[in-house]
Amino acid sequence: MYFLSCRFSLGYSVMEGDHITTLSTPVMVVDVDVVKRNAEKMREHWTKLGVTLRPHMKTHKTLPELCVCVCCECGDIMTGGSRSCIVVSTLAEAGFYADHGYDDILYAYSVPFDKVERCAVLAERLSLFQVLLDHRDALEQLRKRPLTDGRVWHIWLKLDCDNGRAGVLHSEPEALRLAQDISESEGVELMGVYAHCGNTYGCRGAEQIRAVARETTTLVLQFMEKLKAVGISCKSSIGSTPSCSQPISDMAKLSEVHPGNYVFFDVQQSVIGSCGLEDVAVRVLSRVIGHSPHRNQLLLDCGWSALSLDGAGKLPTGYAVIEGHPDLRLLSMTQEHGRVEPLSGQLDYSRYPLGTLLTIIPYHACATAMMHSVYYVHSGGRLVGKWTPTRGW
Amino acid sequence: MYFLSCRFSLGYSVMEGDHITTLSTPVMVVDVDVVKRNAEKMREHWTKLGVTLRPHMKTHKTLPELCVCVCCECGDIMTGGSRSCIVVSTLAEAGFYADHGYDDILYAYSVPFDKVERCAVLAERLSLFQVLLDHRDALEQLRKRPLTDGRVWHIWLKLDCDNGRAGVLHSEPEALRLAQDISESEGVELMGVYAHCGNTYGCRGAEQIRAVARETTTLVLQFMEKLKAVGISCKSSIGSTPSCSQPISDMAKLSEVHPGNYVFFDVQQSVIGSCGLEDVAVRVLSRVIGHSPHRNQLLLDCGWSALSLDGAGKLPTGYAVIEGHPDLRLLSMTQEHGRVEPLSGQLDYSRYPLGTLLTIIPYHACATAMMHSVYYVHSGGRLVGKWTPTRGW
Repeated sequence: MYFLSCRFSLGYSVMEGDHITTLSTPVMVVDVDVVKRNAEKMREHWTKLGVTLRPHMKTHKTLPELCVCVCCECGDIMTGGSRSCIVVSTLAEAGFYADHGYDDILYAYSVPFDKVERCAVLAERLSLFQVLLDHRDALEQLRKRPLTDGRVWHIWLKLDCDNGRAGVLHSEPEALRLAQDISESEGVELMGVYAHCGNTYGCRGAEQIRAVARETTTLVLQFMEKLKAVGISCKSSIGSTPSCSQPISDMAKLSEVHPGNYVFFDVQQSVIGSCGLEDVAVRVLSRVIGHSPHRNQLLLDCGWSALSLDGAGKLPTGYAVIEGHPDLRLLSMTQEHGRVEPLSGQLDYSRYPLGTLLTIIPYHACATAMMHSVYYVHSGGRLVGKWTPTRGW
Repeated sequence: MYFLSCRFSLGYSVMEGDHITTLSTPVMVVDVDVVKRNAEKMREHWTKLGVTLRPHMKTHKTLPELCVCVCCECGDIMTGGSRSCIVVSTLAEAGFYADHGYDDILYAYSVPFDKVERCAVLAERLSLFQVLLDHRDALEQLRKRPLTDGRVWHIWLKLDCDNGRAGVLHSEPEALRLAQDISESEGVELMGVYAHCGNTYGCRGAEQIRAVARETTTLVLQFMEKLKAVGISCKSSIGSTPSCSQPISDMAKLSEVHPGNYVFFDVQQSVIGSCGLEDVAVRVLSRVIGHSPHRNQLLLDCGWSALSLDGAGKLPTGYAVIEGHPDLRLLSMTQEHGRVEPLSGQLDYSRYPLGTLLTIIPYHACATAMMHSVYYVHSGGRLVGKWTPTRGW
């Protein structure tokens, strides 16, 4: 029997096997069985298609601290235990995973000039540390810091395939020119072309998701043809949990995919059409701490410090879904309070005495996870461990 | 010369005296001189009026880790070095400050039933640990856990004076009955009546703030008269940074005030009318990491993971104010990216080469501070230390 927390840090103790309802609230809990199912389903699918799955760590950012079940750590679950071939959104994540024996790490973020030296240290330390860029000034920055021991910078070109965030626009002549320059430069190697189809987040249903996945895949494959025409051969990768959960057949022509959120999923993904609510692995447990009959509201001990403000205005049930209570709306939050009201009619306060535990399914798991220094992990409601995420940049 | 970070945690080193512009971004920085000025102004004002200032720790939640200037720790600054008479929003904060020698701590949160035992431990350990409630079931919970050594529970009654969050409504007969029951019960003592005038956050300008402050003060003082009429004498306290920054004369009749945000202030407080932008002590430093001429946008390395989503739709300049660039709008954010566009016209990209440092004044300092594991503290732009906040509940 392991202690999962000590009195010093939390002021109370929970142990392996304790039910999650004994946890002090608010708290984020993760169903490890759902995590494993989500991870296995994604891995099996892409293995069958012969496409490398490079899972994104940015949602959970975890390694085990006190972990009692074999292979219950989220990075290990996503990589099938290989500890290899991952993508990260921050250099802090890259260092964290490298410190814990991971390799083949792609830092999929337009390489920030203030972090070139830290990137170089990782590139000189790991077997394969890969960076990404979308501007020739970044190429220049990398070339100004040649790697030691005959190593070269491994570079992915970020392409904006109408997602509208980072990347050089696929239709700009500069995209091809930059790929050529990377390909022809000393001390660097063009590893691949990387696109994020975050525009799938505006989709509703499989058909819309597949339309965006098809458009992104087509644009990337067309760009690969252009590269081929000038004698360049490299990898291709697209990602986003929606597109990788509702993939189209042409994605089998890609080298890699790089989804991340799928390991947890969330209400947003169920609304988009990536999953069902039964696939969502995370919850925030909360308790009723107040009755406000003069406003027909309950108060919960879950404010934005435990859930984040993501999801505002997106759901008929407010900022989240309260499991088993489809008649309730999480109307608003301040730092430590959540206001709950009925969708219609008068609250029956006898159903919600002070102390009642309510289970909240987050709108956006990435945003909710960011609010927690520790995630409590359970199987069938019984605690099996805790995961401690890395933070910072 | 102190190292302010080690290579293990951040992968790079910064030292005392380094300029904040050498920090890796995104990063939250705190101007200790502005913090001290804000704290002193508030303390002086209420000392003159003979009202106890019980500063709220929930905005910063910090103690020093590696701190090179004497008395630069935020709790110490707010208490004038007394390490006494504070208010906290979480029990984790209470334990954190208690562990570091603070006493007379008011846990100003409707006492959660799952935390009664932890509260009892603190109440039996400190000279004065005070709790708050707004429901007779909470009184019952406390009475079921009598304190040892002849100690009693020190209880504040939370009154809702039309703020619309926690508290028993001031006009409900139950408010007086509950106060009487606390006053007459064994093992507990009614310390005071506590109201939070968070409804000042809807104000624009000093006049509106003072109107809310007047209404809240009047309602609390009227309630104190009702208590007096039934033979009960206790303290009174109201709070919120707006009301305590633009106080009315009747507030001198209160026993205590309990503002918190004022130590940092933020854009929101300047919009409300609590302060000027020059009083805001916190910034998020960010760098340009992308040019998107096809969308007339810049990309910053500051997403909601560094700033929070608070402020959405509130400002003409988007989620925040970019210092020195009133012509720019922080249009949207994802986890690690911020999209910036001009308020009008075309962006002149030559003004913002990749790597350009932009300084962001947060809309809501409490929400931004929650996103950071460490705050870098400076005086005149030169680093003097770092503060590490407590997290959790």
